[in-house]
This record gives sequence, structure tokens and C-alpha cells, in this order.
Amino acid sequence: MTQTLSVAITGASGRMGQTLIGLINASDKMTLSGAIERAGHAWVGQDVGEMMGGTAQGVIVTDDAAAALATADAVIDFTAPQATIAFAALAAQAGIVHVIGTTGMTEDEIAALAPYADKATIIRAGNMSLGVNLLTQLTKRVAAALDTDYDIEIIEAHHNQKVDAPSGTALMLGEAAAAGRGVALSDVSDRGRDGITGARKPGDIGFTAIRGGDIIGEHDVMFAAAGERIILRHVASDRSVFARGALKAALWGHGRAPGQYDMLDVLGLSD
Amino acid sequence: MTQTLSVAITGASGRMGQTLIGLINASDKMTLSGAIERAGHAWVGQDVGEMMGGTAQGVIVTDDAAAALATADAVIDFTAPQATIAFAALAAQAGIVHVIGTTGMTEDEIAALAPYADKATIIRAGNMSLGVNLLTQLTKRVAAALDTDYDIEIIEAHHNQKVDAPSGTALMLGEAAAAGRGVALSDVSDRGRDGITGARKPGDIGFTAIRGGDIIGEHDVMFAAAGERIILRHVASDRSVFARGALKAALWGHGRAPGQYDMLDVLGLSD
Amino acid sequence: MTQTLSVAITGASGRMGQTLIGLINASDKMTLSGAIERAGHAWVGQDVGEMMGGTAQGVIVTDDAAAALATADAVIDFTAPQATIAFAALAAQAGIVHVIGTTGMTEDEIAALAPYADKATIIRAGNMSLGVNLLTQLTKRVAAALDTDYDIEIIEAHHNQKVDAPSGTALMLGEAAAAGRGVALSDVSDRGRDGITGARKPGDIGFTAIRGGDIIGEHDVMFAAAGERIILRHVASDRSVFARGALKAALWGHGRAPGQYDMLDVLGLSD
Amino acid sequence: MTQTLSVAITGASGRMGQTLIGLINASDKMTLSGAIERAGHAWVGQDVGEMMGGTAQGVIVTDDAAAALATADAVIDFTAPQATIAFAALAAQAGIVHVIGTTGMTEDEIAALAPYADKATIIRAGNMSLGVNLLTQLTKRVAAALDTDYDIEIIEAHHNQKVDAPSGTALMLGEAAAAGRGVALSDVSDRGRDGITGARKPGDIGFTAIRGGDIIGEHDVMFAAAGERIILRHVASDRSVFARGALKAALWGHGRAPGQYDMLDVLGLSD
Repeated sequence: MTQTLSVAITGASGRMGQTLIGLINASDKMTLSGAIERAGHAWVGQDVGEMMGGTAQGVIVTDDAAAALATADAVIDFTAPQATIAFAALAAQAGIVHVIGTTGMTEDEIAALAPYADKATIIRAGNMSLGVNLLTQLTKRVAAALDTDYDIEIIEAHHNQKVDAPSGTALMLGEAAAAGRGVALSDVSDRGRDGITGARKPGDIGFTAIRGGDIIGEHDVMFAAAGERIILRHVASDRSVFARGALKAALWGHGRAPGQYDMLDVLGLSD
Repeated sequence: MTQTLSVAITGASGRMGQTLIGLINASDKMTLSGAIERAGHAWVGQDVGEMMGGTAQGVIVTDDAAAALATADAVIDFTAPQATIAFAALAAQAGIVHVIGTTGMTEDEIAALAPYADKATIIRAGNMSLGVNLLTQLTKRVAAALDTDYDIEIIEAHHNQKVDAPSGTALMLGEAAAAGRGVALSDVSDRGRDGITGARKPGDIGFTAIRGGDIIGEHDVMFAAAGERIILRHVASDRSVFARGALKAALWGHGRAPGQYDMLDVLGLSD
Repeated sequence: MTQTLSVAITGASGRMGQTLIGLINASDKMTLSGAIERAGHAWVGQDVGEMMGGTAQGVIVTDDAAAALATADAVIDFTAPQATIAFAALAAQAGIVHVIGTTGMTEDEIAALAPYADKATIIRAGNMSLGVNLLTQLTKRVAAALDTDYDIEIIEAHHNQKVDAPSGTALMLGEAAAAGRGVALSDVSDRGRDGITGARKPGDIGFTAIRGGDIIGEHDVMFAAAGERIILRHVASDRSVFARGALKAALWGHGRAPGQYDMLDVLGLSD
Repeated sequence: MTQTLSVAITGASGRMGQTLIGLINASDKMTLSGAIERAGHAWVGQDVGEMMGGTAQGVIVTDDAAAALATADAVIDFTAPQATIAFAALAAQAGIVHVIGTTGMTEDEIAALAPYADKATIIRAGNMSLGVNLLTQLTKRVAAALDTDYDIEIIEAHHNQKVDAPSGTALMLGEAAAAGRGVALSDVSDRGRDGITGARKPGDIGFTAIRGGDIIGEHDVMFAAAGERIILRHVASDRSVFARGALKAALWGHGRAPGQYDMLDVLGLSD
């Protein structure tokens, strides 16, 4: 019988935590070995399965992260920057995989992870979706291969509650396209096109933002020339896609040397 | 043997004129009976087939429009407003079909056509594409059927030389959507979305403009609600689509009572 | 204060039942007045809110459908044909709206509903999505407006567990297109295109089926001619779309004369 | 003043030849230095500009290919296998770039080019579109990066006169996807899906073919998993795209060492 991967989850009571636990329970490659919450949380001391509205599954929610990590092969962490740094120290101590999906980390906070990469196998990404990471790398590569005869447009669509435009992912794709061309995005960015704009400037990277309904997130990177277009498209149809990416990363990282990795490593696509 | 429709073309030497003549020559339902150019044009007096770079086809380009219309069942007219009013008078005199694809006519110029509709069968549209006319009418109908739980977005894409955004056709679709909802477009129009926009306002009609390569013209009208989207889409892949629409109109108009018609009549879709 | 619509739900414990109750609880236009299950079901006698894993909401699940309907303005019914006929009798007795989303009803079973339409306002559809009903009607209309210069293709995409192709909805759209053209679908249907097919036959209606991932359901009806394409597209992004359609039907039906209606009536689009 | 590239064209009177000449005349990076036709062709000895229906441009069509290549930096060759082998010998003799877009070459015919690659810079591809070559390589790379949780579907659309399905390009994309996964396409190909198919088999590569109107060629490679889809899409909007790719190849090859290259080299994307 194959050994399954023992996984501990931080922030077990949150939407992402519960999604992760659901996917682990449904997988035959992983087992939930620990469910972590902060001290004082109502779930601590209770069975996580019951807390999630189902039957007991024999894992008691704990606020003792060190103990939980000691029996895990990997810990999945979608929390906040300071908590993530503390988890990295514990993961290093346990010598396990630390998958970090925490967003909003500053350069300094990211640098604070480095010492722990001697003993922990750290996999970190701003966006844990395999598809978005793949799209970003393809965008850079195609932008490098094609000249400015190919106009680049980044088109995104999101639900009607989104308050900013373009999306962070669209801007990340724009950065990748600009990097592929060896230019600064700020020099070529064309946003909010409206009115008498004049002809499109060669070399520009255009952005458009569509809003409506409950669209989770769709991104197109279009390269349009005379006679042909190439479109790289990503459609997210379920928020669980970030949880799925994190679990793939944990499986990939198990047995790998300590160090710092990202989702392109998981995809086998690093430059 | 079936009788074919005899068609006279105005502005025979122009791009649209030559496209129309090519399509008539390729059709088994129509015959070119006249090719009209303004007095003094180099083509006048020459065989139109030879002028177009091919072999003689026995139709001599003429500047005598009245004579040309006298032997025609229909005249196709993509010229300028004043010329079009003069052609309407001649079409009335001949009692034939007058298909008008001339753009940029003012309300007064359009009113000046009315007297001739007693004797001429006038079919006029700002855009002669069957598909765009159909899309406009569907947009109005769907906007009337669905409430503001369905966010309306109009997305258009054109080539990189286009100087204005959104396109005239996109605005026409927006007007149709607003009419379907019984609101004024100016009250609900949301253009140039960029930056911190806040959540989308229910009832808004959003516009986005994509520019790149040699895209001839693509228009999407999206109705997006929680759980579903309906998208009405038009793709123009060839500028000949306007010429094709005009010729369909001529065939439709032949034998019909004098009066003023539009492309929705041709489509059998008038309200 | 506005009066809200009192709604009773059949099959309260099922996936559709729970989705309906969640949407009613989130709406300010409706109140859950009854939750019905079959005699002997574990939920009977319990608070429906607690059974759904939340807090008590003061509605006790009952197996006495007549009593539940007596205090309701409308009953939503996604059950089975025989149960639906019984509910129609009770809805007639109570003089309320009966929304029927039950699938697989035979002609005889549908006919058995007719006597109850004297007193009940019955709204029934094979597919309760507003969008799919709208798309079906648009398809018929566009197919009637355009001639066979426009090739019709119906393209659908579904998840990888679907066992049949094309989808029932795709076939329904094909029937609508054929009806618009005044032909029998069986005479023009072109399915499973593969190998040396020869040129496409004018007038054919083609079907293609895409399968992958967890796609809930996407349908395109394409009308393609020389120079242009019109595409009518529906995207379902959430299974709740059927529940939402049923609740819209209930709101629409309240205060309306007894009789038999469908979703086109709800949309104001009947021919 | 920058030196422009001197280009000779074979088959100058053909549709591809004339397209190439038109693009060279419109470019400021290239000059037409020779126009070649077979001995006995009506254009030989005439000015190529006049033959194309315009004004004289000072290039006389010749049947002396060796002389034409002696004054050229590059020759563009969309002819037939045996002619192409003869042109390779002449290009080697002249020490210039030989761009080969000739289709239908056997393995033996391709092998016959090898000796000439000592002195000629040969760039050859079955499809000269930059975009299609790029898409093929991206497909292989993405298929290698993603596991069989991602269902691969290849969807193509072409005009209604196409006699085979799926298209050759779709099959080439399928081969690339299979190569990326390390499987044989013949073992996993799923074509002509229709009827009771059962659930989709993991690892299969599906093909669907849409036919209608005058669609020049559209290809989607979809990777669909639970929660997300990646779609790599190519749209050809103009047949000139093959001529443009050949001219890019000529510019790229100029000054490069003799040898055999393909479009991935031109794109800087060889593995």
C-alpha cells in the first residue's frame, strides 16, 4: 500500500481551510494529520469534521502548531505575513514542506523566510492556481518571441462586486508581457480607452476590464497582427482552484531538497 | 428560365462599387445592367470589366444616371447624402428599388427622401450588414425581457488603426439595450473603466474597446447574472458583408410596394 | 412594508431543495413558509434551518403537503412526475402558484396537469434557466430570419462525466433552429463529423460536443455566412441557475390568472 | 541609409507569389530583386508590376533562376518538392537564404535538401504562420507541464467547403499534445463524439470540427480541470499570414550561418 502524504492545515475554520480539508478528505494521495487554529478560537479542542458540519473524523483542532507540524509531511498556509514567517520557522524545525499562499507579503517579509529554507522545502506564490502561473510564463515567452507587429491586449472579466480595474492578475500578465519585450509596463500601458484615442500606438499593452454577474475570473492575453491572432486564455470556474494548486505543490515538494520554490518549479517550467 | 434582377451600381469605380459588381457577376440571381460614375471620371465611356482589370463584360460606365436607372430593377447606392437624394428622385421616376447604404445622413437629409417613397421602394440602413441589424434587434428584445439582475456589457474589438472608442456600432447596440430597458443610455453608460471604480452599479451598461491587428469588427452584448450569461455576438470577417446585405435588400425589395424600409424589414423582424 | 411572497418547497432535503431555501432566505421578496418531505423522512418534524447545518429558522419540515400549501402563495416543485401531479391537485385546492421543474414527464403526465390549471397558476418548463429558454426562442427567430446562406452549428461543452453527446439542451436548440427554418431536424442533423466528410451541405444543422473538466454547461448557436457570423451563446456557471429561474417564475405568477404557463411567458417572450 | 534585403520570388504569377510581391513592395526592409517563373510562362520577359495589373516596377519576370538568385539575399519558395530541391542547389551555389513553404514533401525529399545546407541557410516549415508554429510549441510545453487532471480538447473551425475533419493543423496540435505527455496520439485520440459515449476517459485527447461560412481557420487547444481551464487559441483572419511568416523568416535568416532551420528557430523558441 502506498504511503499517503500527511498534511496539516492552518486557519482550518476559514473558507480556504475548509476547502483544503474537503479536498484532502476526497483524495487518496493525502491524509489530514493536523488542523490548526489560533489560541482561543471556538474550534480548538473540537473534532474538525464535526465543526465543518459533518461527522467526526478523528482530527482535533489544535492551537499547538509545533506539535501539529511534527507529525506532518507538509503544512498548507493561507494566513497573514507574520503568521507565515512563524510557520516557516516551525516547518524548518520539523524539516517539512511549507506551502505558502499568503498574499500581500512585502519584500522584507519575503526576505525573512530565507533562513528557514535551509531546512524547510518552501513553495510560495502570489497566486496558487497552476493555470494562472502557467499563463504568466507563456505570456512572457510569447511576448519575447513576437515583435511589435503583434499588438498585445489583456482582457479580463470579473463579477460585479469587484472594486478595482484592471485585476491584479491582469497587471501581473501585463508585467510578464512587458518583461518578455524588455520594456517597462509603465511606459507602454494603455488603460481606460475611451473617446477619440487616435490609432493604437505600436508596442502598447492595452487593458480592458469587463464586469458582470458572478464571473469568478477570466483573463485573455491577445497577440494580434495582420492576418492572425494568438490568444492565451485562463478561465477560473471555482475558487477551489487555489486550494488545488497548493495541494499539488505539497505533493510535488515532498522528498525534495530544502529551498525556496514557486509554482513554475511545480509545473517544471522555470526558465 | 428565371428572370434575374437587373442592378445598377453607383460609384462603380470605388472599393464598394467594385465589390458589388464582383458579387453581382458571381450571382445567378442578378445581372449588372448599369455602372454609374460622376461626369468627368476616367472610367466613363469604358467597359467596366476592363476597368476593373479583367475582360470586357459589355457594360459601359456612364455618367447618365437617369438612363442607367431606366433599364434597372434596382440601384445600389453607397455615395454621399446629396447624391443619394438625387438618386432617390431618379429611382422614383423609374419606379424601381433604391438601396441606400450611404452613411452620415442628417435628419433633414433623411426627411428629403420621403417624397420619393411614393414611387420608389427605398431600403435604407446605417449599417447594411444583416448580422449587425439582427444583433441590434435581439439586444433590444433581450434587454426588455431580462431585469437588472442581468448586467449588460458591450465589448467590441477592432483593428489598430481605429481612432475612436467605443465603435459606432457598439454605441448603437448600447442604445438598443437602453431602449429595451426603457432608460436613456446617457444615464447608465459606463465607459473607460479603470482604477478604483467601486462595485458595478446595477442597471449600468458597460463598454469596453479592444484594439489590435487587422480585426475587422467584433461585437459582444453580454447579459451576466448570478449563475448564467447570455452573449449575443457578431463577427465581421470580410468588408464585403455590407455589399452582400445591400444586394439581399435589392432582391427582397423587388416587386414590393413603394415606401421606406430598413434591414429589419428585409429580415422580417420589424416590431 | 411590502408583503413578501410565501413559498413552500417540496423535496426540502435534496440538493435543489436546499439551494431553493438558501436563495429564499437571502431574498427580501420571498419568505419560506413551508418545507415538505415525504412521510418517514428523517427531516420531518425537525427545524429545516438546523437540518441544513445552520441555526433554527422556525420552519418545521412537514409531510402534510396540503397544510403547507394552504399557507403558501406558491410551491416550487422539482420532484417526480406522479408526485408533481399530486401537488398540482393540492395547488389547485389552495388556489396558488405551482412552479414545476420536474423533468422526464411524458405527454400523458403533462396532460394530467390540465384540469388543475383552472384553479392553480401552473408554470412548467423542462429547463428552468431563464437564459436557456431565451436562447431557444432567439434561435428559432434568427433561424427564421436568415436563409441557408447562414450555416447553423450548435456547439456545446460539458464536464468530463457527461455520458451522452450532444446534450439535451443542444438538441432542443437544434429543434428550435429547424422549426425556425420549417424543416425537420432529423432531415438536416449533422453529428459526429470526422474523416473525409466532403463539403458541408447547405441547410444542415451541425452539432459538436466538447468534454472536459467541470464545465457546467455552455451552448453556442452559430450562424455563419460569407463575411459574418452571429453567435448566440449561453454559459451556465452555477447549478443554482435553475433554482433562480423557478423563484423568478413564482414571483411572476403571483396574482396572475390560473392557467398553464412556461418560461417564455415569464420572460414576456411568447410568440 | 539602411540596406534592405534583396528578395527573389519563385512562382511569381501564383496567388502566393503575388501576395509575397505585394508585401515586399509595401515593406521598407525588403526589395524585390527577382521574379521567377517556369520557362514558357506568359509572364516571362514582362515587367512583374504590369503583369500584376499595376504600373511597371522595373523587375522583369525571368525563367533563369540561377541568375535571379545570384543577385538576391534570399529566395522565397512555395512551389513543389522537385522544384524546391533544384532551388536549394541554386541557393547553395549563391550562398543565400532559402525559405521553403512548399508542402507535401516526403521524408526522402526532405533528406535531399541536406547537402545544400552546407552553403545555403535553409528555413523550412509545413506551415509558415508564426502563430501556428508558436501554438504547436506551447501546446507541447503545456501538455508536459500539466497532468491528466487536465483534459485536452482540440477544437477547430473552418469554412463550409473543407472536405476533411479534423484539420491537418488540429492533428499536428494533437501530436504536439501527445508528445508533451509522452504518449502516442493514436492511443488517446477521441474523434467524432456522438451518442452514448460514456464518461470521458482520462488522458484522452478530444477533437471537434466546426464548419461554416468562410472561416479561414481557428484552432483552440483547451486544458480543462476542476476549477480552471487554459485555452491556447489561434485565429487566422487572412491567408497572407503564410506569406508574412516566410518574409519574417527571410529577414531572420540573412547573415546567419548556413544550415537547416525551422519557424521555431525564427521565433527563438527551439527546445
